Amino acid sequence: MKNYRIAVIPGDGIGIEVMREGIKVLESVSQLTGDLQFSFDHYDWSCEYYAKNGVMMPKDGLKRLEAYDAILLGAVGYPGVPDHISLRELLLEIRQGFDQYINLRPIKLLPHVQCPVIGQTPETVDMVFIRENTEGEYAGAGGIFRETSPEACAVQSSIFTRRTTEKVMRYAFELARKRGKYHKLTSVTKSNALNYSMVFWDHIFDELASEYADVQTEQCHVDAMAMYMIQRPQDFDVVVASNLFGDILTDLGAALQGGLGFAAGANINPERKYPSMFEPVHGSAPQIAGRGIANPMAMIWTVKMMLDFLGHESYGECVLSAMMKVLADPNAITPDLGGKGTTASVGDAICRQLHML
Amino acid sequence: MKNYRIAVIPGDGIGIEVMREGIKVLESVSQLTGDLQFSFDHYDWSCEYYAKNGVMMPKDGLKRLEAYDAILLGAVGYPGVPDHISLRELLLEIRQGFDQYINLRPIKLLPHVQCPVIGQTPETVDMVFIRENTEGEYAGAGGIFRETSPEACAVQSSIFTRRTTEKVMRYAFELARKRGKYHKLTSVTKSNALNYSMVFWDHIFDELASEYADVQTEQCHVDAMAMYMIQRPQDFDVVVASNLFGDILTDLGAALQGGLGFAAGANINPERKYPSMFEPVHGSAPQIAGRGIANPMAMIWTVKMMLDFLGHESYGECVLSAMMKVLADPNAITPDLGGKGTTASVGDAICRQLHML
Ligand SMILES: CC(C)[C@H](C(=O)O)[C@@H](O)C(=O)O
Ligand SMILES: CC(C)[C@H](C(=O)O)[C@@H](O)C(=O)O
Repeated sequence: MKNYRIAVIPGDGIGIEVMREGIKVLESVSQLTGDLQFSFDHYDWSCEYYAKNGVMMPKDGLKRLEAYDAILLGAVGYPGVPDHISLRELLLEIRQGFDQYINLRPIKLLPHVQCPVIGQTPETVDMVFIRENTEGEYAGAGGIFRETSPEACAVQSSIFTRRTTEKVMRYAFELARKRGKYHKLTSVTKSNALNYSMVFWDHIFDELASEYADVQTEQCHVDAMAMYMIQRPQDFDVVVASNLFGDILTDLGAALQGGLGFAAGANINPERKYPSMFEPVHGSAPQIAGRGIANPMAMIWTVKMMLDFLGHESYGECVLSAMMKVLADPNAITPDLGGKGTTASVGDAICRQLHML
Repeated sequence: MKNYRIAVIPGDGIGIEVMREGIKVLESVSQLTGDLQFSFDHYDWSCEYYAKNGVMMPKDGLKRLEAYDAILLGAVGYPGVPDHISLRELLLEIRQGFDQYINLRPIKLLPHVQCPVIGQTPETVDMVFIRENTEGEYAGAGGIFRETSPEACAVQSSIFTRRTTEKVMRYAFELARKRGKYHKLTSVTKSNALNYSMVFWDHIFDELASEYADVQTEQCHVDAMAMYMIQRPQDFDVVVASNLFGDILTDLGAALQGGLGFAAGANINPERKYPSMFEPVHGSAPQIAGRGIANPMAMIWTVKMMLDFLGHESYGECVLSAMMKVLADPNAITPDLGGKGTTASVGDAICRQLHML
């Protein structure tokens, strides 16, 4: 019997609603398999917490999370709290503090889900993004010079270290080796304009490419990549990108997958020195929060990724199968997909499917 | 009789091929109207020039261009010459040197062109991007620290000045006022992660929004924007974005328009202190260069934008009408659109249509 301690941070808005379903699914998995147990500790760190305490999490927040096997995060963000506070002081703090330098984002169209791009199918939309997750454009370095004067300017510095860049690329090369598709790795660049950071990025990529001669490699400018993802998604297998480029392209990828309702993500510290964090990408969606209609698929997919990470890929696959069964029923799904389901009924239906597998 | 002096830089690859058609169209316009004349001076600055001379353009290049009424550029870039040389030392040099701080990119689906996104029409895909074009992420500031050591890192600094940011936004607000659609301006941001540059950007946008109270405003994170452009392009009218965000999103926009074959751009110095530069966005496309099959529509659209800028909007409209007539004939168009036309035959057909208007 394996017992995992999970820190749960539901956060704000629909984060709280979808988290319940994620936990429901994990509890079903636990019941069904009999060899896994989860103990969940809830943390109310959020924008509401900020309103009361003036901080997004306590000073010793990271310390309190350190000993967990994994962190599940719903979503943070709320009107009234500036995003650069709510996100930098919680989400980005954890990503950077726990050296979760890999952001893993599957861009996969599930069967029965409508892709907005003509002619695309689950076969053509099937790639994985490896996004650098702790530095680069998100380094947070810079300043604003004499903000209110006519001479005002702002400087925002991206910082790319060889150490992290190399580790992220190695992770991507290894994944390209392992994944069945084309053994192909696309590196997203913009070295025609970003004459230091992306030239540096390209050099490191070239160096590693010669070590991984069995992996087919390709370099693509971020602007062209955005276009190609629409024009020929079938050509991509594993994609490695900087923090910002990964952020932009994976949201575009979410559109290809049928919307943010399917955008699952994992923030991974591969050395397992610190806990990894699993979070759907959709955000707190204040405009639909409180109505019980948020699509919990992304959260549940995220839970699948956590199971994979903990070494239980076969259970992870069961969760994905159960999700696909539910997607096949046009009434079961949530309104964003044209159905009449609720957040809770989708979670329940997935648990029922799990029991029938 | 108005006489315009135009500097022509065909550049490399298909740049050279499409430029001929652009000039053909301008000569037709000149013949037809009788009140416009163009004199063209050709400059062979390109990667080939670089191979011979070790520089992309002569030292006094900018000086030689200074007195023209406009610059027409085909495309630069060639395998063997690193992009950060060919582009930074010619294209970006001219944009920055001539303070062409506005990059204007219409994202408009023309009739008879297939949009890859389900359900989109010329009515739903119709927006204009105003991209900052001289600074921001393209400032070229930074460095690489001890490149080959394990401690190596690269720093790339974005620099946003209030002066330019404000001018770009004002230009966008004025356009939103003038354009018929929704009088709406969307500002692309990422202030949840870029805690100096984009927070600064947002402050300036908020300031100006209160001055332009008749313009409906909206702020959207760049990642979400990429998704929304696919999910609901009809909601956008005028969009203002930084140099890099504009670069990425307008290429995505090109996909919506039916491909780079329709991506026209103008690099504008609104004060007319320096010449403005008109260029299609497609690049030199070495893989199809020399075969006479490149789609010249983007170049010809660019020529239309030059006519508009010179104050001849009605002739500009004629060029666009002629393009649309040619697009209606499935045989006339180039192979990228499924037709059998050549670069030259499309240019000829557009000139014929101009004569029939
Ligand atoms: C909320 C925001 C800071 C975050 C990011 O930009 O990384 C989000 O968009 C994501 O992709 O996880
Ligand atoms: C070629 C490149 C430097 C350029 C840019 O990034 O600005 C191009 O992509 C564009 O959009 O004009």
